[in-house]
Amino acid sequence: MEIRIRPYGESDLMAIQRIWNEVVEAGNAFPGDAPLSLQECRGYFASQSLTAVAELDGRVQGLYILHPNNIGRAGHIANASYAVSSEARGRGVGEALVRHSLSQLRAHGFAGLQFNAVVSTNKVAIALYEKLGFTKVGTIPGGFRLPDDSFTDIFIYFHPAPEPEKKK
Amino acid sequence: MEIRIRPYGESDLMAIQRIWNEVVEAGNAFPGDAPLSLQECRGYFASQSLTAVAELDGRVQGLYILHPNNIGRAGHIANASYAVSSEARGRGVGEALVRHSLSQLRAHGFAGLQFNAVVSTNKVAIALYEKLGFTKVGTIPGGFRLPDDSFTDIFIYFHPAPEPEKKK
Repeated sequence: MEIRIRPYGESDLMAIQRIWNEVVEAGNAFPGDAPLSLQECRGYFASQSLTAVAELDGRVQGLYILHPNNIGRAGHIANASYAVSSEARGRGVGEALVRHSLSQLRAHGFAGLQFNAVVSTNKVAIALYEKLGFTKVGTIPGGFRLPDDSFTDIFIYFHPAPEPEKKK
Repeated sequence: MEIRIRPYGESDLMAIQRIWNEVVEAGNAFPGDAPLSLQECRGYFASQSLTAVAELDGRVQGLYILHPNNIGRAGHIANASYAVSSEARGRGVGEALVRHSLSQLRAHGFAGLQFNAVVSTNKVAIALYEKLGFTKVGTIPGGFRLPDDSFTDIFIYFHPAPEPEKKK
């Protein structure tokens, strides 16, 4: 089993659309609740600071997007979203994506990475973020509407951009 | 001295532009760092859930904008920005704007109000938010670039939507 992370290309769009919309339709992780058409995907993923995909055994099974969390004077903090195909979960793809995104922050001009809406019921993501050194900034009570229309808290997380590795 | 808050109209646009851009140009409160043209103002303030102005002694001296802080499953939490003309500061306009925005949350479908980027050096705003019952959710270290290109923390604040007042 080998995981490879690389920038996405046009030929990845259908795989990306399938993986992204699977998370949208589950309704328990992304704020967005409308599946993206292929045309919307084309614009959305091209507009990011970086869209990267994870190949597992040669097949695209995950992706992340990286972009400024805000504009202007707060535009040096990034935000990211991650998606892993349900069939590939539990095999380290998510961790590889988050680690890769952290490694790309400085190259894209970012001083840190902020998550605005980590759903409190998303235990796997929370455990991963905490394992990788993200700090929980705080809680927005009832900030997320679950598929049954009940509300659950969202957590805000932050990680400073890792220092560049020293060249030997 | 009387403060009156009301929805903005087209005839307020030049006053709004002046007050808004004064805050943009000070560079110590809004993430946005580009002054808005009158045409940009026309689109921006019309696109809000609510744009309201404060008249002090019959003259527009402040405004606020209210809009969803996020999309879809997190779209029931609002975000707002406030601006008061420098010549009118210290006269209660800001407090009247924030109180009014809280009172408008439920009518616009919002369950709470979140501020994403309260600049740590903005002591007047912080004191006002805390007086009015906002809770500090947490801190994004170095999240704001000041005009001298140094970085300062930003705070995230939250206030649940007040219960509707009981009709007598």
